[in-house]
Amino acid sequence: MNLVLIDAAEIEPAGETVLSGHRATHVIDILRAAAGDTIRVGIVDGPVGTGTVLAVDASSVRLRCAFEPNIPPPPVVDLLLALPRPKVMRRLWAQLASMGVGRIILTNAERVERDYFDTHTLKEEFYRPLLIEGLQQARDTRLPRVSIHRRFRVLIEDELDALSADGLRLVAHPGEPLRVHEAIARERPSRVLIAVGPEGGWNAFELEMLLAHGFIPVGVGARTLRTDTACISLLAVAHDAMLVVNRD
Amino acid sequence: MNLVLIDAAEIEPAGETVLSGHRATHVIDILRAAAGDTIRVGIVDGPVGTGTVLAVDASSVRLRCAFEPNIPPPPVVDLLLALPRPKVMRRLWAQLASMGVGRIILTNAERVERDYFDTHTLKEEFYRPLLIEGLQQARDTRLPRVSIHRRFRVLIEDELDALSADGLRLVAHPGEPLRVHEAIARERPSRVLIAVGPEGGWNAFELEMLLAHGFIPVGVGARTLRTDTACISLLAVAHDAMLVVNRD
Repeated sequence: MNLVLIDAAEIEPAGETVLSGHRATHVIDILRAAAGDTIRVGIVDGPVGTGTVLAVDASSVRLRCAFEPNIPPPPVVDLLLALPRPKVMRRLWAQLASMGVGRIILTNAERVERDYFDTHTLKEEFYRPLLIEGLQQARDTRLPRVSIHRRFRVLIEDELDALSADGLRLVAHPGEPLRVHEAIARERPSRVLIAVGPEGGWNAFELEMLLAHGFIPVGVGARTLRTDTACISLLAVAHDAMLVVNRD
Repeated sequence: MNLVLIDAAEIEPAGETVLSGHRATHVIDILRAAAGDTIRVGIVDGPVGTGTVLAVDASSVRLRCAFEPNIPPPPVVDLLLALPRPKVMRRLWAQLASMGVGRIILTNAERVERDYFDTHTLKEEFYRPLLIEGLQQARDTRLPRVSIHRRFRVLIEDELDALSADGLRLVAHPGEPLRVHEAIARERPSRVLIAVGPEGGWNAFELEMLLAHGFIPVGVGARTLRTDTACISLLAVAHDAMLVVNRD
């Protein structure tokens, strides 16, 4: 935890807040903070800042917070992901948030098992703490927007433009010679949306539909990766390329 | 498992082999292979090929294997990693092998807890099956070479040149403007060795010593990542850059 994230509603009018539970334990046992110490804090979807410890007891910490004037911009990369099996999805939440994604768009596909959608892994009360954990690791405050779509065609034809209007659309596709960072360097987009298929890949209809809706196929090397490893790899390469585009 | 890996010693002179245990279960229950079917096989550190199923019983599979004439080259990226805590290292083995690393050089550093070295996670009988799992996922046969070094200074001064003689040396360092793929595009190396520090970073002495031994600092973005996420990200960007260098 490199930043303690606080919901706006937890902050009292004078800028004070009381941490309890997991965050308090972290401040008390790991950071070993005492009255007068300062720790890095942030507001979910708000600014980062500094929390001055006012008081510590066995299970809670009172802080006075001062925040920076500006809110960090949301990450410039979004992810469209064919829902992986629950065990993999569980591992992914915190990692995706730590890598930085503006949106996580989870979709059905032919090669997604239907019962993957019925898991508690997809309930907000389950995944929100994991997203927060990833943000706290990465010192970010911007909670990824999550949406879950049981009908691929409806998502792509009717819903996707509202979720992701502008920006470059890429679909990872084995054997494609064009690389992610080449596509990004060429198009110099303001945002990137990367589509990652199920283990076994998109079927021909799904790929066709993605291409018809502006997705450009990009190669991802000859190695077949586990979905979580593939997502982290693609996000890493896309962020790297976007940093260069935004710096130049 | 996208490839069934077999040790050379398991193959009988006529090219037949009998799978049992986990690999047999996979072929029987997941691939549902029957006599006459073919599956992808490979020899550890050898060629890939095709296995024709000769016979299947409840717990074993007999295959006749035919291998390609050429052995795939080892991955062109190596990793020098300050030993992470056992839980993280356990997760990393298969992922590193699936991403492709020629060598995994694990080292001590000031901010590595000494007892991390005493874990069964570092025993070959523990990690070899995980590396094999990663190779089978990625359809590679090249087992990463693993070495474990309890003395950072001895490693860097006396041992590293023998482990990694040629190739570009990069050290991930927060805040550095030069990016991994820029360094690789500029130097066009035949191999890359990437050094990843402990959570909390290398200390000043360690960083100094790395720089004195040819490591070039490269930036990794503003986000602080968990060690496993950071390794996957760096390997992804390095492999991507090396693919472009080797293609152009």
